[in-house]
Amino acid sequence: MSDEADAIALDVANRILAAQPFSVLIGAKLTQFGGGTARIEVPFEPQLLQQNGFLHGGVLAYAIDNAISFAGGSVLGPSILTAGMTVAYHRPARGPILAEATVITATRSSAAVRCEVSALDDRTGERVIVASGHGTIALIDRGAE
Amino acid sequence: MSDEADAIALDVANRILAAQPFSVLIGAKLTQFGGGTARIEVPFEPQLLQQNGFLHGGVLAYAIDNAISFAGGSVLGPSILTAGMTVAYHRPARGPILAEATVITATRSSAAVRCEVSALDDRTGERVIVASGHGTIALIDRGAE
Amino acid sequence: MSDEADAIALDVANRILAAQPFSVLIGAKLTQFGGGTARIEVPFEPQLLQQNGFLHGGVLAYAIDNAISFAGGSVLGPSILTAGMTVAYHRPARGPILAEATVITATRSSAAVRCEVSALDDRTGERVIVASGHGTIALIDRGAE
Amino acid sequence: MSDEADAIALDVANRILAAQPFSVLIGAKLTQFGGGTARIEVPFEPQLLQQNGFLHGGVLAYAIDNAISFAGGSVLGPSILTAGMTVAYHRPARGPILAEATVITATRSSAAVRCEVSALDDRTGERVIVASGHGTIALIDRGAE
Repeated sequence: MSDEADAIALDVANRILAAQPFSVLIGAKLTQFGGGTARIEVPFEPQLLQQNGFLHGGVLAYAIDNAISFAGGSVLGPSILTAGMTVAYHRPARGPILAEATVITATRSSAAVRCEVSALDDRTGERVIVASGHGTIALIDRGAE
Repeated sequence: MSDEADAIALDVANRILAAQPFSVLIGAKLTQFGGGTARIEVPFEPQLLQQNGFLHGGVLAYAIDNAISFAGGSVLGPSILTAGMTVAYHRPARGPILAEATVITATRSSAAVRCEVSALDDRTGERVIVASGHGTIALIDRGAE
Repeated sequence: MSDEADAIALDVANRILAAQPFSVLIGAKLTQFGGGTARIEVPFEPQLLQQNGFLHGGVLAYAIDNAISFAGGSVLGPSILTAGMTVAYHRPARGPILAEATVITATRSSAAVRCEVSALDDRTGERVIVASGHGTIALIDRGAE
Repeated sequence: MSDEADAIALDVANRILAAQPFSVLIGAKLTQFGGGTARIEVPFEPQLLQQNGFLHGGVLAYAIDNAISFAGGSVLGPSILTAGMTVAYHRPARGPILAEATVITATRSSAAVRCEVSALDDRTGERVIVASGHGTIALIDRGAE
């Protein structure tokens, strides 16, 4: 796609994100989208933490879920669902996070996507990987339910 | 444990949940805890939905993450972390959910936990399984990071 | 199903297992099948071990893969594939194993299945859980590839 | 590491593989090892197939298990175990496979590893991704069992 087409795609994808009340509640932004990739950013806000002052694991899982969904959607189109995902937690998230998802392979009806979540460490100013995941996105089959 | 001990454990566990700002944001309740099990309830509120009016997948992932963590904690104690989890999505969640987690097996330093999430279907009034998962809980090893 | 119908189902399922050369190579037996469940047994043989004398993790993964596939097939029929699975390893397998799979929920086109693998511990004579898993079985969609 | 050091590492790693009777049974080769990566190759042999003439899913799971284990071991050393893994199956494997694993991130006691499995398609002569996975490798904690 041209840069212009990419920009339009990102804009449309952000409208989908903005139509998700839970994404608005979390304050997530979609800052990259297209060509089998997507990047979700989540701020480090007090209401997103767990009892030790780190981002809650559920926030990281949300970011992975949505990043793999958008990455898959950039290949399969908007009528998709996340069939499943794996989340591995590696370190506490001490700052805002980026969830970066990349399609590994896609068939006509599904996409396998990997995702890495990095956080800005407030102690060192460095970005570290705090979680990683893998997911499968499927075209919605209206007859399957 | 006696019924009284169970009740105390549930109370203490609910204080941990109440100390998680993200759990308060979501409005989660811990309604069962102890003996290798835990049950997290999440209401069906407008701010927790995705663009089609179902609970967002990230909300289900949050519930699984926390239910397996508390179930593991009921066996291993409070100094734990979720090492990883798997979430499989089966149906859209059209009502409030229960995430029910059960320890499969535990060693001195870790627990394997399974979890099923059911939702009250607003069309039928019946409870259906909307997601299932599996997770590993580990004792926090301060030297590992 | 009647006991007779169950017996027939187990017999047919064992013919499918016998038609899998890799299952013959491993020496796996299907000893329970039907109603959303399946049990695969694998012997403790020298050629199935890893370098420390335990059953190789790949053998446990094979057993989980096949047990969840047969459990799913008992609900969805024979034209199925394993879409994905998770394997968590808990302890070394020091003896023959049983992989016991149970369907959690099924739609018309897929089934979610959990599985636990236990081994007879040659030191204690007791059965311990050595691995657990979760998988998704899907009806084969010939148009999807 | 220098090329010579890499070559030695690969040689030592292949001796570990050769000490795994199950890897010998399967006929697996380790053809790349070091710097957080490993590549396992498995031939397309009659005894490794399932009932439709494709490599059995358990063979792919074996390859992922071992590739992530060696990739993790290249960072953490030989006293490791696979804590868990996820396998997603994308297409039937119609020829010999390569399982290529890469460490995503590592702490002092664990490594997160991703893996992709590709097969030579006997119909087209092209290499296609047939499975992907994610695993966690941990240093063996002798006191944990």
